[in-house]
Amino acid sequence: MSTRSYAILGTGAIGGFYGAKLQQLGMDVHFLLHSDYEQVCRQGLLIESPMGSFTLSAVKAYHHPEQIPACDVVIVALKTTKNYLLPQLLPPVLKDDGVVVILQNGLGIEPQVAEIVNSKRVIGGLCFICSNKVGKGHIRHLDYGMITMGEYQDDYQPGGITPRMQQIAEDFNNAGIPVELSENLLLARWKKLVWNIPYNGLSVVLNAKTDELMNAPDSRILVEEIMQEVVRGAKGNHCKISQQFVQKMLNHTEKMKPYLTSMKLDYNEKRPLEIEAIIGNPLRMATEKGIDLPHIAMLYRQLKFLDYQNLNFH
Amino acid sequence: MSTRSYAILGTGAIGGFYGAKLQQLGMDVHFLLHSDYEQVCRQGLLIESPMGSFTLSAVKAYHHPEQIPACDVVIVALKTTKNYLLPQLLPPVLKDDGVVVILQNGLGIEPQVAEIVNSKRVIGGLCFICSNKVGKGHIRHLDYGMITMGEYQDDYQPGGITPRMQQIAEDFNNAGIPVELSENLLLARWKKLVWNIPYNGLSVVLNAKTDELMNAPDSRILVEEIMQEVVRGAKGNHCKISQQFVQKMLNHTEKMKPYLTSMKLDYNEKRPLEIEAIIGNPLRMATEKGIDLPHIAMLYRQLKFLDYQNLNFH
Repeated sequence: MSTRSYAILGTGAIGGFYGAKLQQLGMDVHFLLHSDYEQVCRQGLLIESPMGSFTLSAVKAYHHPEQIPACDVVIVALKTTKNYLLPQLLPPVLKDDGVVVILQNGLGIEPQVAEIVNSKRVIGGLCFICSNKVGKGHIRHLDYGMITMGEYQDDYQPGGITPRMQQIAEDFNNAGIPVELSENLLLARWKKLVWNIPYNGLSVVLNAKTDELMNAPDSRILVEEIMQEVVRGAKGNHCKISQQFVQKMLNHTEKMKPYLTSMKLDYNEKRPLEIEAIIGNPLRMATEKGIDLPHIAMLYRQLKFLDYQNLNFH
Repeated sequence: MSTRSYAILGTGAIGGFYGAKLQQLGMDVHFLLHSDYEQVCRQGLLIESPMGSFTLSAVKAYHHPEQIPACDVVIVALKTTKNYLLPQLLPPVLKDDGVVVILQNGLGIEPQVAEIVNSKRVIGGLCFICSNKVGKGHIRHLDYGMITMGEYQDDYQPGGITPRMQQIAEDFNNAGIPVELSENLLLARWKKLVWNIPYNGLSVVLNAKTDELMNAPDSRILVEEIMQEVVRGAKGNHCKISQQFVQKMLNHTEKMKPYLTSMKLDYNEKRPLEIEAIIGNPLRMATEKGIDLPHIAMLYRQLKFLDYQNLNFH
């Protein structure tokens, strides 16, 4: 059994679920909480899940990062819109030889974290999960759960498979969470964007669920055109994504139950949208290589407008 | 005094206003009405206008085009979404040497009308007017009113200034409506699209008035990028639009009072949007010349999706 200690920054749908699973396995897990702190101190963390529902009654909950002991692994599971907090949050909770695992959407967060903790201490993770926070300290896991992990190296150079990521993967596997190890984090992130950019973006701009986007011919075409732009942006960054993968994403989404994307949920709840991580950063990464992605560029500006109006006026 | 007779197809904000002004001058005007027919028969047409409000109590109102006598000038002032009716409506109301004046938005309607009545009998008109139908037989003219007219020739070849358009312009001028004669209808239509495509399209997609689009930096940039695509589409069709004109449209809109575009009004009222005339036809005209307009192409698909959802589901 591992003796690794974990800190969870952001105890929401993602961090709350994975952290609770790790603690359920017997790991030493420390949860940073913000608005749910008092509720969780009193009543613990409630996880509903088809894998088995449970309550963690004894939660090591913290309101301030300085109170958390330095840990071996720090899981960043905040919304990326809160990442401006990381320069304060990360240093106190990370052991000198500890590692940060970034379980966030989008692209371009690892370099920002590497500036804070050094690039040799950053692992990126992509969560394939349907999970929502439905109340204070109350997480409803709906489906899936797999994580893809990849080592971060400067400029997203492929990092190979390292022993430390294998150890962390083993902890997750033992907790019932399948982990796929990727030798190429950048490729893994671009591949996830093939889904995330069109569906997150268009769901907000067109006020639509995934099934509506797939059923109407014009939005269906737009989804695929945007996916092809993501493939071009990836290619300009030496990441090859096949046409079969694009078709798989389309077919998979057609078969999914009607789904409200995370960005649309944020929009409906009047929370800031993760526009920069999911759309702005990949767009800039393509532009820097001279790749023009006009649909994504337009989507970016539309979302920035809608986010601004949503937070300030409506 | 002219002896020309006028038929008005579509007695709404445009047709009702101009037709009433012509009749007020003493012209022989015949109005085709649909849902307002009985109200107008009983109570006439009420025009509110800063130029002077008035009621036409004796209106030659018709419910069926076969009842209208053949006229010298037929004004087409329907929404373009009703143009599928024109093959039925036009032939009975047009004298053998009569002419059709198309007072509609967008591009590509004249060739369709030329297929019905012959290209030598079509004049295009662009209305620069703020006018709304606020009730049955009740039109509120708010501001402006100028019409730009141009002769249509096959494939929008410039038609020069002809005596017949001068005569019609004289009737309008006598009725208090300034008319500008254009030698190049295609250029006039592309120039109007510099305003119409970005503001009509984005007002619907982004749920915004003109002032909101101009005040937020991202939408402001998007408006201008779309205007530049219109300029490129025009250029590919041998219509030169200057950068000064683009800047004039931006500056003018910045100074305007907050304005709900006609497409946004249609959307709010759950009427079909004039997507093909304002966006689809110009887009195809550019594509046929090998000009790629990616922002406008995306706007087109977004509007088609929203129009479909608006009419069918929401």
